[in-house]
Amino acid sequence: MIDVIVIGFGNVGFHLCKGFTSTPSVNLVQILSQHFTEDNFQGVEIIHDFENLAKADVYIISVNDDNIENVANKIPFKNRLVVHTSGNTQMESLPNTNRKGVFYPLQTFSKQREVLWKGIPICIEAQTADDLRLLKELAIAVSGKCFEIDSLQRKTLHLAAVFASNFVNHLYVIADEICTEKNIPFEILKPLIVETANKINSLSPLDAQTGPAKRFDSQTIQDHLTNFSDPQQKLLYEILTKSIQDHEKKL
Amino acid sequence: MIDVIVIGFGNVGFHLCKGFTSTPSVNLVQILSQHFTEDNFQGVEIIHDFENLAKADVYIISVNDDNIENVANKIPFKNRLVVHTSGNTQMESLPNTNRKGVFYPLQTFSKQREVLWKGIPICIEAQTADDLRLLKELAIAVSGKCFEIDSLQRKTLHLAAVFASNFVNHLYVIADEICTEKNIPFEILKPLIVETANKINSLSPLDAQTGPAKRFDSQTIQDHLTNFSDPQQKLLYEILTKSIQDHEKKL
Repeated sequence: MIDVIVIGFGNVGFHLCKGFTSTPSVNLVQILSQHFTEDNFQGVEIIHDFENLAKADVYIISVNDDNIENVANKIPFKNRLVVHTSGNTQMESLPNTNRKGVFYPLQTFSKQREVLWKGIPICIEAQTADDLRLLKELAIAVSGKCFEIDSLQRKTLHLAAVFASNFVNHLYVIADEICTEKNIPFEILKPLIVETANKINSLSPLDAQTGPAKRFDSQTIQDHLTNFSDPQQKLLYEILTKSIQDHEKKL
Repeated sequence: MIDVIVIGFGNVGFHLCKGFTSTPSVNLVQILSQHFTEDNFQGVEIIHDFENLAKADVYIISVNDDNIENVANKIPFKNRLVVHTSGNTQMESLPNTNRKGVFYPLQTFSKQREVLWKGIPICIEAQTADDLRLLKELAIAVSGKCFEIDSLQRKTLHLAAVFASNFVNHLYVIADEICTEKNIPFEILKPLIVETANKINSLSPLDAQTGPAKRFDSQTIQDHLTNFSDPQQKLLYEILTKSIQDHEKKL
């Protein structure tokens, strides 16, 4: 049984807690939240002050990147395992008072949406072999999928994830705007969106590329360019089209 | 039983033929392909010349946009129903010799990847109520999902699909490049990519947005910007970040 305390109750913290409470080999001892006013979550005690922190095998800090160091400094213990969940923060930025580590689940989390932990890659890092073993055990218990990734690789992975998820979602936003402006239900695009993502499970993204830019179909591209009322949409269209074509020319 | 002939055997034509041959109420009479050298596909005769075209209820032209008119002009009949499958070509661009229509399946097709026709939206258009009824019957038989969409709406839908599919896939290409350059398996990103797409089935894209741009996390954004070796990747990062932030400011 691994005793865990989660510090921070945002999107990631919330879903981590849900994951831990439904994993038999994990004991979620406490949740520390400075903003959440309830006193328990699914039977787990919620505390609001660092003085009330109990003993645990691992303290998981899940707060905004800018706050990690500040929060870690408030932990009133020494030599315990303290990890953060950030994609873009070095393990070394944690203070030296405790043993350091990282427990980064590579997924997009929204409070309104249920998360299936099974299969979510969890990227771990630690200073000692024992701590790495413990984090690996925890990751495997929660999701079954664990990768040892150092801080530099994690930074790269986080950048790639921004393209593959945040920027991708923004393109959905723009597709939605284009449809809505002409009273076309965005609904019609959903099977296409889901298939475009699922395709990369059987084809490399480069092999999966289709569309007028890839075909250098200049008539269709010119047609599209006359259709924009929003200059920012048009600029995105031009730059993404050029980038696809530059990639095709290199093949 | 609806008698269909497919003209053109590219990605869309190929998958249409597969869909038709597995639909009991559709009879695929012939496939006309000028490039494909085989003489049959799943028991259906493949012909190579327009003179050999048989009689059918509907002729579906599935060739590159630039070739549709040229191919339609070679059909040696009058007053039959001839449709194309293009998102960006007006129905009216078909010649007047035959009755015109559109049968546009809104999905991304690659020959190497199996297509599940069930649930794929098929956008139809025709000149007469009878032809519209026939195309609707055909669409419902193949996928169960049919929308009447006129040429102007279809153009808009096609543009939105370019953002939601072609451009999205290109961002997967870039994420793959970023990972591969630093020897990180692209595999790790796949659960994130699939969840990002599935999320829009329960949240609007705007509600689903996450990440440093949305949070105006300038430290992380600055960090990311120092990481690029490719100026085109950097430019895309900057423009997509700005576009997300401009959207957030409007909320």
